[in-house]
Amino acid sequence: MKKWLLTAAIATSFGAIADEGMWQPHQLPAMADELKAKGLEIDANSISKLTEFPMNAVISLGGCTASFVSPKGLVVTNHHCAYGSIQYNSTPENNLLRDGFLAKTFSDELPATPGSRVYVTESVVDVTDKVKNGLDGATGNAFYKGIEQQEKSLVAECEKEDGYRCKVYSFHGGLEYYLVKQLEIRDVRLTYTPALSVGKYGGDVDNWMWPRHTGDYAFYRAYVSKDGKPADYSEDNVPYEPKSFLKVSAKGVSEGDFVMVAGYPGRTNRYRTANEVENQFEWAYPEGKILRERIIEIIKDTAPEGSDERIKYESSIAGLANYAKNFTSMIEFYGKSTMLDDRKGLEQDLANWIKADSKRKQQYGKVLAELDKLIAKGQQGQERDLLLSYMGYSTMMSTANRLYRLANEKALPDMQREPGYQDRDMTRFTSGMERIERRYAASVDKAILADLISRYAALPKDQRLPAFDKAFGIGNKFDMAKFNKTLDKMYANTKLSDKDTRLAWMDKSVAEFKKSKDPFIQYAVATYDERMKREKAEKQLAGDLMKVRPQYMDAIIAYNREQGKPVYADANSSLRVTVGHVKGYSPEDGLKAVPFTRLEGILAKDTGVEPFNAPEKQLELIANKQYGDYYVKSLDSVPVNFLSTLDTTGGNSGSPTLNGRAELVGLLFDGVYESIIGDWGYDPQTNRSIQVDSRYMLWVMKYLDNADNLLEEMEIVD
Amino acid sequence: MKKWLLTAAIATSFGAIADEGMWQPHQLPAMADELKAKGLEIDANSISKLTEFPMNAVISLGGCTASFVSPKGLVVTNHHCAYGSIQYNSTPENNLLRDGFLAKTFSDELPATPGSRVYVTESVVDVTDKVKNGLDGATGNAFYKGIEQQEKSLVAECEKEDGYRCKVYSFHGGLEYYLVKQLEIRDVRLTYTPALSVGKYGGDVDNWMWPRHTGDYAFYRAYVSKDGKPADYSEDNVPYEPKSFLKVSAKGVSEGDFVMVAGYPGRTNRYRTANEVENQFEWAYPEGKILRERIIEIIKDTAPEGSDERIKYESSIAGLANYAKNFTSMIEFYGKSTMLDDRKGLEQDLANWIKADSKRKQQYGKVLAELDKLIAKGQQGQERDLLLSYMGYSTMMSTANRLYRLANEKALPDMQREPGYQDRDMTRFTSGMERIERRYAASVDKAILADLISRYAALPKDQRLPAFDKAFGIGNKFDMAKFNKTLDKMYANTKLSDKDTRLAWMDKSVAEFKKSKDPFIQYAVATYDERMKREKAEKQLAGDLMKVRPQYMDAIIAYNREQGKPVYADANSSLRVTVGHVKGYSPEDGLKAVPFTRLEGILAKDTGVEPFNAPEKQLELIANKQYGDYYVKSLDSVPVNFLSTLDTTGGNSGSPTLNGRAELVGLLFDGVYESIIGDWGYDPQTNRSIQVDSRYMLWVMKYLDNADNLLEEMEIVD
Repeated sequence: MKKWLLTAAIATSFGAIADEGMWQPHQLPAMADELKAKGLEIDANSISKLTEFPMNAVISLGGCTASFVSPKGLVVTNHHCAYGSIQYNSTPENNLLRDGFLAKTFSDELPATPGSRVYVTESVVDVTDKVKNGLDGATGNAFYKGIEQQEKSLVAECEKEDGYRCKVYSFHGGLEYYLVKQLEIRDVRLTYTPALSVGKYGGDVDNWMWPRHTGDYAFYRAYVSKDGKPADYSEDNVPYEPKSFLKVSAKGVSEGDFVMVAGYPGRTNRYRTANEVENQFEWAYPEGKILRERIIEIIKDTAPEGSDERIKYESSIAGLANYAKNFTSMIEFYGKSTMLDDRKGLEQDLANWIKADSKRKQQYGKVLAELDKLIAKGQQGQERDLLLSYMGYSTMMSTANRLYRLANEKALPDMQREPGYQDRDMTRFTSGMERIERRYAASVDKAILADLISRYAALPKDQRLPAFDKAFGIGNKFDMAKFNKTLDKMYANTKLSDKDTRLAWMDKSVAEFKKSKDPFIQYAVATYDERMKREKAEKQLAGDLMKVRPQYMDAIIAYNREQGKPVYADANSSLRVTVGHVKGYSPEDGLKAVPFTRLEGILAKDTGVEPFNAPEKQLELIANKQYGDYYVKSLDSVPVNFLSTLDTTGGNSGSPTLNGRAELVGLLFDGVYESIIGDWGYDPQTNRSIQVDSRYMLWVMKYLDNADNLLEEMEIVD
Repeated sequence: MKKWLLTAAIATSFGAIADEGMWQPHQLPAMADELKAKGLEIDANSISKLTEFPMNAVISLGGCTASFVSPKGLVVTNHHCAYGSIQYNSTPENNLLRDGFLAKTFSDELPATPGSRVYVTESVVDVTDKVKNGLDGATGNAFYKGIEQQEKSLVAECEKEDGYRCKVYSFHGGLEYYLVKQLEIRDVRLTYTPALSVGKYGGDVDNWMWPRHTGDYAFYRAYVSKDGKPADYSEDNVPYEPKSFLKVSAKGVSEGDFVMVAGYPGRTNRYRTANEVENQFEWAYPEGKILRERIIEIIKDTAPEGSDERIKYESSIAGLANYAKNFTSMIEFYGKSTMLDDRKGLEQDLANWIKADSKRKQQYGKVLAELDKLIAKGQQGQERDLLLSYMGYSTMMSTANRLYRLANEKALPDMQREPGYQDRDMTRFTSGMERIERRYAASVDKAILADLISRYAALPKDQRLPAFDKAFGIGNKFDMAKFNKTLDKMYANTKLSDKDTRLAWMDKSVAEFKKSKDPFIQYAVATYDERMKREKAEKQLAGDLMKVRPQYMDAIIAYNREQGKPVYADANSSLRVTVGHVKGYSPEDGLKAVPFTRLEGILAKDTGVEPFNAPEKQLELIANKQYGDYYVKSLDSVPVNFLSTLDTTGGNSGSPTLNGRAELVGLLFDGVYESIIGDWGYDPQTNRSIQVDSRYMLWVMKYLDNADNLLEEMEIVD
């Protein structure tokens, strides 16, 4: 029903058009004129400097984006980004999640969930030469390992300074590498959150949907030691004083206005080849959807509503369903699009351009063919690989594998270990091992594993892995009943469901694992070599891809340069800036999504039943037209959420949406359903981000939640 | 989710506002200035004359509206109005319903389904005085019977002229009576229909929905004898030559344009009292919804998909579901509306106005109280009455009742018989009795009856009817198992499922019925006196209402007259005119329904699976942008359906939608979901009718169906 087919300029252009583009800050000065023409009022150069306003006010929470909005380290992000911390502080007696929470003084603030971080990006340095140094001749696994080693060295060097976290990001599939250095603030506290019925209004029903009426915001505060350094939680810590912070706009934006977002988008696939597109949409998404929906079904059957087991798996169901919906949208819009043909057309254009010049021909002539060959290689055995990866949903299996891997890695010097198993990773590793109970039930784990292994057993023998077959007794004929008995025994006898046992295994040697009688440990040991062999083959391929894909991207960049068009890299969780406009769209022929929703929409949607159960007081305020300071005449109401053309994706959640003066006019929290496929190509007709309007946030703070202390603390401008 | 709550001017105003109003043609001259200001270009007087253009081109099919569009009796109406005739002519080998049909010459035209009629209204005469003559002193049953008798006399007198059908319509609950005389054309033929996948595109999924892309049109031709008189089908008949016909506009309408519709709207309830509104929405619709959904469930359980029984009940399911959806919408929007409070407010305003003047006080002072007393009386035992009325879904039960009623009525002189049992009704009665097989299966009939009777048996004893209890052996304790055995026997032994048996009973006497061993006949005989007693009580109440409600309406009319506002009567299947504009609406906060859909919407909706399976050729034409003569620049396409503010309801289907010059610019075929509650009150914000755009009809005829002969025959204007 959607208009994908109708869009003349389909999303697969290699070069950025309209409001497309997730720009690295250093790219912005070159685009200054264009940005100014679009509506940027501050200097484009200033945005490119990470340690100056406004970029030094934009921070990462790891997975989400946030921003400083006061000189005292007050942080605003999405409610769904602070969800874990709100839940962590909630008890049946004092249900902050349900009722909301406001610290009236600093001392009332509550520690965020353990592991919460605020990352302030302080530098981004091009380290391409360092990373690739001496690796010109290397290929495959050697190249992969070589790059990894250089990255680890750079990170270790960078993290010598206390209180910092560093990471090397690869751009354009390995064409460029940047070392990012972030101040890592470890004392994060919950300052204010509206009630769930405001912050998650519409819940999963409205997820990815427009019209939307979600007050998806919450406030943290960052704390540091008295001498201003990152420190663990302590009563003696003091609020962090950021170098700058964002002003909050009470005037907001109107239809057509310029907006920009700085944030940490996770991943896009805008430059994949036609073959990759075809495989992903015609095989990987459909298969993934089937598996996800099947696992949800298994969980629901095994852990009936109301059972203790079900409570443990609610978040797993939500996560599985979220991406099942995502994949469904991907498949739906791909089916209606000409994406594959368009992508092929672009590849042909590029090939023609390369062919037209002998120098280009020599440099790039064979690149696409080589790339496609490697891609085809990667697709061999992908049915099996997908099933094995979904076996990660079996906590027992993945826990055993990870623990035994750790024992093996620990035998190596720290710098030679696999990322994720180094000393710097142990805090996270331990807390991961500790938290398992809350999301594990043997009955569910077993049922999921049984289903996946029966699918695995149905694969042709040449696709299956001998060690794996042996460990689970899979032969030419698979006896499900017998296998279920094996699983029953494994789950009855394993001790890995016990926290202390797991933590104890973290310190044991490979030899001790080999002597273990725990059936899942035995499985991990028995399949280890084969899994490592597979991993090595994967790295071999990855290394080759890391050599070839950059050449392909280099060709694309050169091709665009000739047309005067800059090229942005696919999202990779690093800091990006995107610019756009406040704008509606047509979700289907005969309908128009207008760019603003209004308070009255909450009244109309409200059923009194979650997720459409706005607080009584809010409904009264709306029914009595108590718009207060945030009334907008053209809407005859207060705006709630708004649409923009901003080019964003997961990871951008919580990003401050800024006007031309870099004042906060909203918080980005979602994209519309039609935008999901946007990860593969930006469609100017339907790609829309959804923001909480700053005026709604201020209205709720002032009239519903009486957060006067925070309104006082922030700098609110007209 | 809908905006009912938000509309300032709620629909319950007694006087017409905005584009509200279903006007009797004779009311139009008094509104000439207003109509002209709205955009009417032809003389308002001319529309009031039924025997002149354009009203003499607007005809009734009985249940639907249609219009003449050529001097040779060519008739255009909705596909769903001609559906029965298309189905009637379809065979598995020659599936006109699926593939469409075009008669290239007159002789290729096919007879419409038996009983098809074209009614041309020739006169509407105020007969109020005649109908009420001599009945001033009568009340209750005597008044009811007296009115009925006068009506029958007027009809008999009117129908003396051969080829005419006459009926007395009551307006404003009996304040006025009009005798309508219609030429009854009996030879109706199918000329042209698009394929089902055009004419019913979107099917039941899109029913009552926007956006819409349905080509809901089809063509008939009216035939008469060589001397121009109505006649049964004969090869010698000739096309009827109407006094005038509508020109078809190839230019169509734009957003904001004036439109009007002449047609035969079925029933509205715009002047019901607050008590009636409350009972209907808080009791009758919810109960009706439960019963309808339960009967659908029973049919589906008893007649599984794919069974022969199921085929027989598909149309019953569709009908039940249609109104279950209707009731759901009624309940939903009532719940979001302030309709009841508003209606109470209006009654209070009226009461205040009456009180303010002693003469008015004397004339109307007690009317509302009296009316409400009668209404409350009518609601006594309504649980039982509703269940008994739904027992009409048991074909065996209703057939037995009707046949025995006929035997009783036949003992009376024709003019004294109950309407529906007079000689003039026997053609329809007979064909009803003949058609039963095609929609009857004993298993389903029994299951429905069993469910309804078990509900009836659960009623308190004082609500139940003794004769009925006795006939079905219902005592203080109801034994379902035993009762099911009784039903098994009844269905095993009845012969009423046989057509010839039923037809034979049409000629039998009361005495013969009393001797019958057929269990359903026995039931009908045993309960007859009690049912007649109940009917008499109902008529007593109806008679009283027919005395009081006109006084109430008289007060409303006087009240409005003082404010200079005309009052239109509730719809009653008589000819009405409504005027409005082409206009979108907001179905929910953040969304706008734009007034036109476009060809591209078909491409986007199409799944290849019914009901979204447009013909291949059509999809190709659209993909290739073959807009031809009907391209509209502002839409960059050909419009398919459009929205208007026209005040319409069921019965208006097939109505010609006319521009200010009375040219046909569309065919009305539906209203939006938010309009369903419009039968109780017109909301200018959300009340929208849906039309097929004349340009889409012409585009399909020209480029898809090559109906050049009809395009040639019609007068198409720019």
